[in-house]
Amino acid sequence: MRGKGELRFIGVVEVAGEEEARVQIFPEFCDALKGIDGFSYIIILYWIHLRDNEKERNVLQVIPKRHTADVKVGVFACRSPSRPNPIGLCVAKLIKVEDCLLIVEGLDALEDSPIIDIKPYIPRADSISDARVPEWTR
Amino acid sequence: MRGKGELRFIGVVEVAGEEEARVQIFPEFCDALKGIDGFSYIIILYWIHLRDNEKERNVLQVIPKRHTADVKVGVFACRSPSRPNPIGLCVAKLIKVEDCLLIVEGLDALEDSPIIDIKPYIPRADSISDARVPEWTR
Repeated sequence: MRGKGELRFIGVVEVAGEEEARVQIFPEFCDALKGIDGFSYIIILYWIHLRDNEKERNVLQVIPKRHTADVKVGVFACRSPSRPNPIGLCVAKLIKVEDCLLIVEGLDALEDSPIIDIKPYIPRADSISDARVPEWTR
Repeated sequence: MRGKGELRFIGVVEVAGEEEARVQIFPEFCDALKGIDGFSYIIILYWIHLRDNEKERNVLQVIPKRHTADVKVGVFACRSPSRPNPIGLCVAKLIKVEDCLLIVEGLDALEDSPIIDIKPYIPRADSISDARVPEWTR
């Protein structure tokens, strides 16, 4: 058996929604938000809790949703929520910080999804506007 | 106590290096790479194994390295390797795929870092070239 790591949930999606979502960071991690309001976008890593089971974690290939491809692609080559580690990654616009509450736009997580990390979005490292993608993603 | 999640390591950084790094995906997860060569950039999530201990995981604020700021910022507002969940995130250029081996450029992980997820970089969702950042990151 390969190695494992243990994640601690640091918050939760209290209210989901593409337009506006509310992400509550647990009080014991709240100090880690200091200075986050200096960024207009953040990377939210969340736990796709509804796919955290053996069956979904053993899925290695899928037919991507909302695309016309009728071929299977690997889950590491798409954003399938079924994957060996059910980690969701979303670049979201940070609208407002109210104590331990983040109000964001563009988050694709479902309500009650545990949050596992928040990182600031830094264009110098994170923005590759001309990255090549295959036809089926368009 | 809050909830927890269990990560399975899906690969390892065999050779580190900003210029060229070699990321070995374990054979049992290799099918999940199908189609990844259609992307020129990928997002690599790795486990910062050297910081996976109680002391480093309890760090909530740091003085960012390589910056002139002399104020502490929260670990969720910077890319500190010390954080509640030692997850590293790096956008890397995909140079070549050889079976289960990914040869990439720009990976900041150390040798032997376990890999926890690979996602394709899709500019439509992931590239925000004009995201605002605070002065100290420049």
